[in-house]
Amino acid sequence: MDITLKPPNSLSRPLFVPKKLLMGPGPTNSSPRVLKAMGLPILGHMHEECINVMDEIKEGLQFVFQTKNPVTLAISSSGHGGMEAAMCNLIEPGDTVLIAVNGIWGERASDIAHRYGAKVEILKKSPGKTFTVDELEKSIIKYKPILFFLTQGESSTGVYQALDGFGEICRRNNCLFVVDTVASLGAVPVFTDLWKIDIVYSGSQKVLGAPPGLAPISFSSQALNKVYARKSPISVFYWDITKLGNYWGCFGEARMYHHTISCSLLYGLREGLAELVEEGLPNSWKRHKDCANRLYEGINKIGLKLYVENENCRLPTVTTIRSPPEINTKHVSKYAMERYNVEISGGLGPSAGLVMRIGLMGYNANFSNVDTVLDVLQEAMEYAKHNKSKL
Amino acid sequence: MDITLKPPNSLSRPLFVPKKLLMGPGPTNSSPRVLKAMGLPILGHMHEECINVMDEIKEGLQFVFQTKNPVTLAISSSGHGGMEAAMCNLIEPGDTVLIAVNGIWGERASDIAHRYGAKVEILKKSPGKTFTVDELEKSIIKYKPILFFLTQGESSTGVYQALDGFGEICRRNNCLFVVDTVASLGAVPVFTDLWKIDIVYSGSQKVLGAPPGLAPISFSSQALNKVYARKSPISVFYWDITKLGNYWGCFGEARMYHHTISCSLLYGLREGLAELVEEGLPNSWKRHKDCANRLYEGINKIGLKLYVENENCRLPTVTTIRSPPEINTKHVSKYAMERYNVEISGGLGPSAGLVMRIGLMGYNANFSNVDTVLDVLQEAMEYAKHNKSKL
Repeated sequence: MDITLKPPNSLSRPLFVPKKLLMGPGPTNSSPRVLKAMGLPILGHMHEECINVMDEIKEGLQFVFQTKNPVTLAISSSGHGGMEAAMCNLIEPGDTVLIAVNGIWGERASDIAHRYGAKVEILKKSPGKTFTVDELEKSIIKYKPILFFLTQGESSTGVYQALDGFGEICRRNNCLFVVDTVASLGAVPVFTDLWKIDIVYSGSQKVLGAPPGLAPISFSSQALNKVYARKSPISVFYWDITKLGNYWGCFGEARMYHHTISCSLLYGLREGLAELVEEGLPNSWKRHKDCANRLYEGINKIGLKLYVENENCRLPTVTTIRSPPEINTKHVSKYAMERYNVEISGGLGPSAGLVMRIGLMGYNANFSNVDTVLDVLQEAMEYAKHNKSKL
Repeated sequence: MDITLKPPNSLSRPLFVPKKLLMGPGPTNSSPRVLKAMGLPILGHMHEECINVMDEIKEGLQFVFQTKNPVTLAISSSGHGGMEAAMCNLIEPGDTVLIAVNGIWGERASDIAHRYGAKVEILKKSPGKTFTVDELEKSIIKYKPILFFLTQGESSTGVYQALDGFGEICRRNNCLFVVDTVASLGAVPVFTDLWKIDIVYSGSQKVLGAPPGLAPISFSSQALNKVYARKSPISVFYWDITKLGNYWGCFGEARMYHHTISCSLLYGLREGLAELVEEGLPNSWKRHKDCANRLYEGINKIGLKLYVENENCRLPTVTTIRSPPEINTKHVSKYAMERYNVEISGGLGPSAGLVMRIGLMGYNANFSNVDTVLDVLQEAMEYAKHNKSKL
């Protein structure tokens, strides 16, 4: 048997990875400590030292999520895998679910829930707006859903959703409360137990400062009870929480092989969590808030307007700026990237074409970066205004 | 709101990752070049430089799989995610599938197919045995399945399954041919197009020499046609090949955001592929075969017996050795790891308790490692024989 297809030339070139300042909605830059950890030697997925790192991550996540849930772990998927895991473990075909939609994440949650066979009811708000406990209560009484999905940090619109009070209503109505904190965890308070959240998940590549590839998640005992009471098998083996929980040592049984976890991603997340724990949660919350305020001030000085009008609903990690009509913001992003290797993003989903997005998360959330991105933004806007034909 | 749960002490200790020689069934050690790449700066999932790395990986995978399939990419999951992706894209509830089971991977494929609503028919052989084209033909005529699943490298038993001829029978009977090459790709020939394989997948952490976390996969046009003809949505958004294929630029359309790919895992896989392309496939196949032969010889000299009797059915990457009745092989593995940081594995699934497994893959497949693992094995066996009470 002969090789018929020839080797590609592209792989004989050296790998090219430039250093950029990632001031978009994530991933964010990782710290030197995290990047150094990524290059450590490979460990087997059942080796004692790998298990120890998993245990340390579990403790770190229980702290960051502020939960005592034994079933707290990181899923071997991007952040969106946390959404899949929540849905595929809880939903049985025919179950009614209620999804709060005010941006792309609610839309995606609806899509996913539909694929797992749910009857999907929508609690809808315009992009940029938030939900109230009263609105939830009316809908929950009307639809009697088995789960309610809410996004704390709507990174497509820059909206921060307050969470307190929703869990009470859900628990009173026998509905599980699922919260997406991909873009918010570590930058704003998340009190999983206090707020009666049944499944909370996040992503490794935002405030936690690790590379993408892992989705931290936590299941309450109420969520697990729904899983244990299923009549049909959990839809997806890869995210089966009964198997994942065993592998992560959450049930006090002997650990069984489930999948080959990526030790390298574990190293990065472990170091990112260690840095966050070292700083302390209140300090991190304050740092993100201070940076966001400095950014708002600078944006105001440049003469731009924030997309989210109510300042209590602004997500400190992702700031959305209304695109001025006279400027093509794609040109702004292009100039910032080509001239300075600085990422300034456009909108996503419902905010596409309407906003520019600036991210401040984890390692990147400091005053120096705020000032840099403001300088670059101002210069890029000037350039985009006066050199339309050149771009 | 106050922090009620205190930070864990474990994260204030430095991260501990020892250097080991991973001579088990995977993951294997990564080369210094691959590990160095893992620590490179983070890139956004839609950045031009990230897309370029994805394109290079695609070309590398088309070469290693020996396919011209445009839909060739790496899924953001462990190797087992490839199995999930194959099943969730092809299976609609009620479809009949035929799974060849002679070890753990066929069992897992059956479990997964069942969860996606398939009627699962099994073509069964004892662990250690292989399948013939005639056996497939009889079953395919009897059950009329929409897909047939076969594992090329059964890492639980060390069995190599020849693939030629199966694809012809499948295509003639309107059945898609799905092949697991997680433990074999790069070490033995895989001629995807020539052998009429419709979905082939692998894992990053075996012969390709990258850290775990990505699952290379390729879809034929026949497989895609089945996807396009579905009446129900693809069960899982995360592995929806119509969305993944778009993100990987396989359809010639503008790329849309689907999930946040792990740039770091891409760097590692890209470098692992580059090393394999540099060596050349026939050289890699020969190196793995030569190493396996040297290992068989050494095992024979020690007085141990190989589990797979037919030498044409031995997988060069994972060698299974019958456990001698007088020795607890858990003690052998423990001694090798504690005394030398060398991994020698026990059995898995149907081979648990029956065999020891030695892996030779990618960067680790060289004569020096073969000699080392044989020395360690012999010493560990002596120790285990004479010091039962101490372990």
